[in-house]
Amino acid sequence: MKSISILGSTGSIGRQTLEVVRGHNKEFRVVGLTTNTNIELIKKQIEEFKPLSVCVMDEEKADLLRTQIDIEVFSGLEGLKKIAILESADTVVNSLVGSIGILPTISAIKSKKSIAIANKETLVTAGKIVMSEVKKQNVSFIPIDSEHSAMWQCLQGNRLEDVRKIVLTCSGGPFRRLSNEQLIGVSVNDALQHPTWDMGAKITIDSATLMNKGFEVIETHWLYGLDYDNIEVVIHPESIIHSMVEFSDNSIIAQLSLPDMRLPIQYALSYPRRIENGSVSLDLSKIRALTFENPDLDRFPCLRFAYFSGKSGGSLPTVLNATNEVAVRCFLDKKIKFSDIPKIIKEILDSHKTINNPELDDIIEIDKKVKLTTEDFIINNLSQKNGAIYNQI
Amino acid sequence: MKSISILGSTGSIGRQTLEVVRGHNKEFRVVGLTTNTNIELIKKQIEEFKPLSVCVMDEEKADLLRTQIDIEVFSGLEGLKKIAILESADTVVNSLVGSIGILPTISAIKSKKSIAIANKETLVTAGKIVMSEVKKQNVSFIPIDSEHSAMWQCLQGNRLEDVRKIVLTCSGGPFRRLSNEQLIGVSVNDALQHPTWDMGAKITIDSATLMNKGFEVIETHWLYGLDYDNIEVVIHPESIIHSMVEFSDNSIIAQLSLPDMRLPIQYALSYPRRIENGSVSLDLSKIRALTFENPDLDRFPCLRFAYFSGKSGGSLPTVLNATNEVAVRCFLDKKIKFSDIPKIIKEILDSHKTINNPELDDIIEIDKKVKLTTEDFIINNLSQKNGAIYNQI
Repeated sequence: MKSISILGSTGSIGRQTLEVVRGHNKEFRVVGLTTNTNIELIKKQIEEFKPLSVCVMDEEKADLLRTQIDIEVFSGLEGLKKIAILESADTVVNSLVGSIGILPTISAIKSKKSIAIANKETLVTAGKIVMSEVKKQNVSFIPIDSEHSAMWQCLQGNRLEDVRKIVLTCSGGPFRRLSNEQLIGVSVNDALQHPTWDMGAKITIDSATLMNKGFEVIETHWLYGLDYDNIEVVIHPESIIHSMVEFSDNSIIAQLSLPDMRLPIQYALSYPRRIENGSVSLDLSKIRALTFENPDLDRFPCLRFAYFSGKSGGSLPTVLNATNEVAVRCFLDKKIKFSDIPKIIKEILDSHKTINNPELDDIIEIDKKVKLTTEDFIINNLSQKNGAIYNQI
Repeated sequence: MKSISILGSTGSIGRQTLEVVRGHNKEFRVVGLTTNTNIELIKKQIEEFKPLSVCVMDEEKADLLRTQIDIEVFSGLEGLKKIAILESADTVVNSLVGSIGILPTISAIKSKKSIAIANKETLVTAGKIVMSEVKKQNVSFIPIDSEHSAMWQCLQGNRLEDVRKIVLTCSGGPFRRLSNEQLIGVSVNDALQHPTWDMGAKITIDSATLMNKGFEVIETHWLYGLDYDNIEVVIHPESIIHSMVEFSDNSIIAQLSLPDMRLPIQYALSYPRRIENGSVSLDLSKIRALTFENPDLDRFPCLRFAYFSGKSGGSLPTVLNATNEVAVRCFLDKKIKFSDIPKIIKEILDSHKTINNPELDDIIEIDKKVKLTTEDFIINNLSQKNGAIYNQI
């Protein structure tokens, strides 16, 4: 039986991880849970899964929870790190959203935990440091994201040196067919309607701008050590093929399933075994057609920014992630327009002087600073007239 | 460096195997070659690849070749078996067509050779005996057929006990869209135009009737030990996905490439490594769509006969293969119509009294007898008026 701590258990991936545990209670048990502020939900999770300790990021909410339950309740970043290194845990599922996920990942690796990683920022902003620590500690580091899990599955039984390229599939998001003009006017609600996946708000917006795919390109680079020129993105609106690996002999191995995050979550936990579950089997004769096209980097420049930042390396991916995080938050708060997101990111990327080989402290510092810079930039440039940064196209 | 004997080196797969060897002459060398009658081609192959011995099935042609070259020339079935057990060979590629391929396969297995198998009849008619010998001798037995190679590749790094089902893809052949009425009138030339693969005449006709897919279902059963209920066929006209494996967690692993037999041939020889080659990389954005539909067992009953024969087991798959071999030959000789093929097969299958657990001698005997019975049946029922067995539909 595997003992699991889940960082971010009240979010979308965290809740689905608990569904997997619920379905396989002879395989997995939960020893730690964390939430930002959702103490109502974590209370129910505590009742059902009986963890040894939990963490609530928000201090006040943590105090409130302490009055209601009698297990250990940590709080803040220090509390998060404590859950990440709980002695009784074999595996830490990191399903946090945002750069808050980096430090607990590193703590868990240093404590020789197996890592199941859904937090994008860990690899996007600190990929070099994290992967070198993974190697040093010789721990298992398995992706939960459907695309990276697909690659992981496709690579089984093959040698990394035989890989020629990895093809990341991308649904194209809800705005795949919109023109540049139409993209200006899309609303938060429009952007939150993902055609194939039901996910959290931040990642759904990132999927609509294709920044999410860009992050996945950077994660692929770090996970499998591939040059950016050997990582391709192909638009595949049906989200059935979750990614592919092409080998030196031109043979391609692909992983397919109906879109269901419980599959990659479960595989990360059960690896190298596979276990049954209540998911629905894929019938390709019902799907009828799987389609593919190249991404349009003019309409979706965020993907181009990600390749550029990844290739430039150093501190630039950290900047990319930090400025995007603020821009997306402002869009969700209806302070800026959808089409402002890439413009803001470009502005901030252009103004950054890249630091090569940043240490972890530099990364944390740059992350904070860029977020403030982006906020300032938005406040200073926001047109009161129409609630947009840029009036021009 | 691997030393290879190629049984059937002047046929389609044999020639492509030599292409692979030509492209990788530091990896592979040829020690034995065989042909039925094509001494002109085998002479050229001998000149280029310098094998130690060859076999010509036809005695007269063998005598003729002996006067022209100074290496050892065997002849007949005994000669074929000698090439299959050449001491200097590590690997025997069996690319023979027809049931003549069974005995040399068994000789090679007993001599502890690694087998790369393209000969369908080996598993279709003698699967039980062959696979038990493979197990007993603990030799490597790798499929060359694109579909079975795909499964082999998809299974790497996975456990056979985690497999729920295998999905065999099928181009559907050149007559996928024809009605029953239209199928009656198709010519030999029409049937030899395969939409995606360039293959020998016999297998191209078997692809047009879907009997080839039926044989592959039976081979899949023996290769991977799956029940027939867990082997599915899906029509996929683009022939890009060569087959898929679905695991117990509903994850599917698929193998893709442009149709090119050199890929599976090479993988069978280089396994578990992959090596570069001159083949063309697959660009899905150029293909644009992969489509899927269920096979129509009413219009293509041969596939149904194969499932029936496989499930019934015993001598029935041998009968299926033998009667089909004669029917296809008669169609290629323009003695019968395309739509006669399944009718003849059904007649012969219905009249056979299945023998359970036949020995190898029984199989060879049944194979011969059924071929004669089928020939007699065709001669006795052939309508002189319109050159067809059946006038009615």
